Amino acid sequence: MIGPKGATRAVRVTRLRDGELSRARDVVAVEEPLEIRVSWRAGPAGRKQQPLAVTMRTPGDDFELAAGFLHGEGIVSRTDDLLELTYCRDGGVQEYNVVEARLAPDVAFDPERVLRNFYASSSCGVCGKASLEAVGVAGCTVLPPGPSVAVELLAELPDRLLEGQGAFERTGGLHAAGLFDAAGEGGVVREDVGRHNAVDKVVGRALLDRSLPAAHGVLVVSGRASFEIVQKAVAAGIPVLVAVGAPSSLAVDLARRFGQTLVGFARDRGFNVYAGPERLA
Amino acid sequence: MIGPKGATRAVRVTRLRDGELSRARDVVAVEEPLEIRVSWRAGPAGRKQQPLAVTMRTPGDDFELAAGFLHGEGIVSRTDDLLELTYCRDGGVQEYNVVEARLAPDVAFDPERVLRNFYASSSCGVCGKASLEAVGVAGCTVLPPGPSVAVELLAELPDRLLEGQGAFERTGGLHAAGLFDAAGEGGVVREDVGRHNAVDKVVGRALLDRSLPAAHGVLVVSGRASFEIVQKAVAAGIPVLVAVGAPSSLAVDLARRFGQTLVGFARDRGFNVYAGPERLA
Repeated sequence: MIGPKGATRAVRVTRLRDGELSRARDVVAVEEPLEIRVSWRAGPAGRKQQPLAVTMRTPGDDFELAAGFLHGEGIVSRTDDLLELTYCRDGGVQEYNVVEARLAPDVAFDPERVLRNFYASSSCGVCGKASLEAVGVAGCTVLPPGPSVAVELLAELPDRLLEGQGAFERTGGLHAAGLFDAAGEGGVVREDVGRHNAVDKVVGRALLDRSLPAAHGVLVVSGRASFEIVQKAVAAGIPVLVAVGAPSSLAVDLARRFGQTLVGFARDRGFNVYAGPERLA
Repeated sequence: MIGPKGATRAVRVTRLRDGELSRARDVVAVEEPLEIRVSWRAGPAGRKQQPLAVTMRTPGDDFELAAGFLHGEGIVSRTDDLLELTYCRDGGVQEYNVVEARLAPDVAFDPERVLRNFYASSSCGVCGKASLEAVGVAGCTVLPPGPSVAVELLAELPDRLLEGQGAFERTGGLHAAGLFDAAGEGGVVREDVGRHNAVDKVVGRALLDRSLPAAHGVLVVSGRASFEIVQKAVAAGIPVLVAVGAPSSLAVDLARRFGQTLVGFARDRGFNVYAGPERLA
């Protein structure tokens, strides 16, 4: 997927190799802020608009990112909750860095509640949690049993994720997330400088495609599995999460609590299953 | 540094190796929420308290983390701005997961302004920025010239960072950040599931040691260099940043704007210099 802006940029660098310094050309992943705004019908007075979040992301698939973010935060739950996603271009200089999500008239949106939840979450990893007590997965239920996923397929999925990435991304500048079905087909792969953004883009695509909850989905991520990644997957109803890197303790706890199969260190045709081994076939 | 809670935890896993499934014991990095609260003197009425942020972190060095976070956000600028850092234990169940920072009486703290800045920053990577326009490094000045750092030392620093890490952490479960002087000595290494937290811990240690701005410091990080990492280093006055991984476009832009030397892909005795090559000796 290509967005209005490029995902990479060329830069000049000074390079050290084998003890020798030289000038060279290099490519870096683009990182730019995206502001996500929500507008909603506030009675007969008409629509209101509220900036919700600024995330540092790699441009491209911005509408998916916004849709996935709003879904992960519980602000929208169905495709029809979103009337429209558009770029705001009021400022001119910030073209393509502000996305407005227009909520459907019947979506209950309480800006006060949302803002209250957001103020305490400046740091990374916990989005929209007002207090320790609120850290959890609000409104999520335990995932139903199934599907069965072949052990051989699970071991192969990191390679399929890599195939779905661009050449630059394989060099390690970008995180990737891919959503496959339980047979390893239908892979949708998205990339970003932020792990959570790559997952939001994939979940957002599924939401826009009316395929949530992804009850037969297997989410593969190129990095580690943190609390936040498991949370987003559970919210999207994804029963199997495969991480190339290590899971954290809270990721393991959360996956066990919600009946999710959590696979870590999926590389070199091996892996560790930290939760939900009953889905292995 | 050891905190009141462990940084790792043993878990039982199902392991796939060479096509064979077996049960095994594994170790995961602990990830738990830390709430950072601020209390300040609000006139003759006494002190007030306000929760500021919840970050998912690896327990340990929590006071350093809180100090570094508050410094990065511009809430404290000098060691004496902090009267005391303590664990709040009002809830009982949340022992050691809430840190209160008592600000000195002469520190100007406007909770309204801070909350206004925080509400829009739910996503990762941008902390406390109310809008796109505010994304930048408020109050930071261009770093002064110097020091000179030997090319050989820069190539060696990732190994020194690794030496400073624990055995588990070398397996890839935790990010590391280390602050060295321009001769590669005096390394302070801290680890966390969050890259930004590892940097906050190192900067917080320097703040508590009254050694900010770290005008002769070289910060080494085990992962990538994003906007946020460069921002925290610039705010701490650190002139040289070395990342084992890739920098983002915004990291390069920010380093160039503030006169910081930014080294990326520092591995296998080689690296690329993306900004400020004049400090290489």
